[in-house]
Amino acid sequence: MIKDDIFYMKRALVRARAAAKQGEVPIGAIIVDKNGNVVSTGRNMRESKRNALHHAEIIAIDRACKKLGAWRLTDCTLYVTMEPCPMCAGAIVNSRIKRVVYGCFDKKAGAYGSVFNLHEYPLNHKYQIVGGVMESECAAILSDFFAELRKRPKGNKNEN
Amino acid sequence: MIKDDIFYMKRALVRARAAAKQGEVPIGAIIVDKNGNVVSTGRNMRESKRNALHHAEIIAIDRACKKLGAWRLTDCTLYVTMEPCPMCAGAIVNSRIKRVVYGCFDKKAGAYGSVFNLHEYPLNHKYQIVGGVMESECAAILSDFFAELRKRPKGNKNEN
Repeated sequence: MIKDDIFYMKRALVRARAAAKQGEVPIGAIIVDKNGNVVSTGRNMRESKRNALHHAEIIAIDRACKKLGAWRLTDCTLYVTMEPCPMCAGAIVNSRIKRVVYGCFDKKAGAYGSVFNLHEYPLNHKYQIVGGVMESECAAILSDFFAELRKRPKGNKNEN
Repeated sequence: MIKDDIFYMKRALVRARAAAKQGEVPIGAIIVDKNGNVVSTGRNMRESKRNALHHAEIIAIDRACKKLGAWRLTDCTLYVTMEPCPMCAGAIVNSRIKRVVYGCFDKKAGAYGSVFNLHEYPLNHKYQIVGGVMESECAAILSDFFAELRKRPKGNKNEN
């Protein structure tokens, strides 16, 4: 299972790198079905799409619902390079995803323990959560991105 | 302000009724700018679109971002007939909406106090929240919908 988690997290990191290339905060996600088939992927596109909803997880969930023709993503696992924010953690509940694996932690907005833990509350879906998978790699891609951003002239910076 | 809130909540209720007519749990939303102009509307479309993300608020926020060409909906007010769930409350934070007005409370999934209060946590956006506006009308449209649903034969029911 750990081996599989690393395999898929590496693929989520590929999407994160693609986001960085477009000047987006590098976060990537991938949804995998129970047989290990990739259902969908997503990367953060908030700036390029000028849309507050376009986090990696939301894009991946939206694509998975469209691909499977169902709002329930039962038996699916979502991999994401950073701890989900409240919106994305709520979308995971709503889509009935079975398992979430994330990389690094998000002290500013993380909804699995960093700011608060959504999973502690009595919502109508419970699922497995694994954090810290390839944490250092997932954190490094973000810190590299922001280090690069600080070198740029003002007026061309992403707000975190 | 109260008079305005009732005016716009009535319009959100029109969207909720439109959802009910399509067999969707009747929840409607509307986003209004600081001048009182309607930016966007949304209604719950989870079943018809087979998409876990298609709550009224998410649809309204998505449309507003597209219309305004911005992920920040600063100075906008969102009206919704029922207390937002964690996903929608998180989307409100992410889109920097200034004010949220909701109708009835949601004991099962409400993120403004019914299950937990997202607003209590130190996220990077604070905004005004007003609950209970036209509460009885907003609750009645839901209870009528579920009463009607219970009369139908099995296999044709929305999951709450």
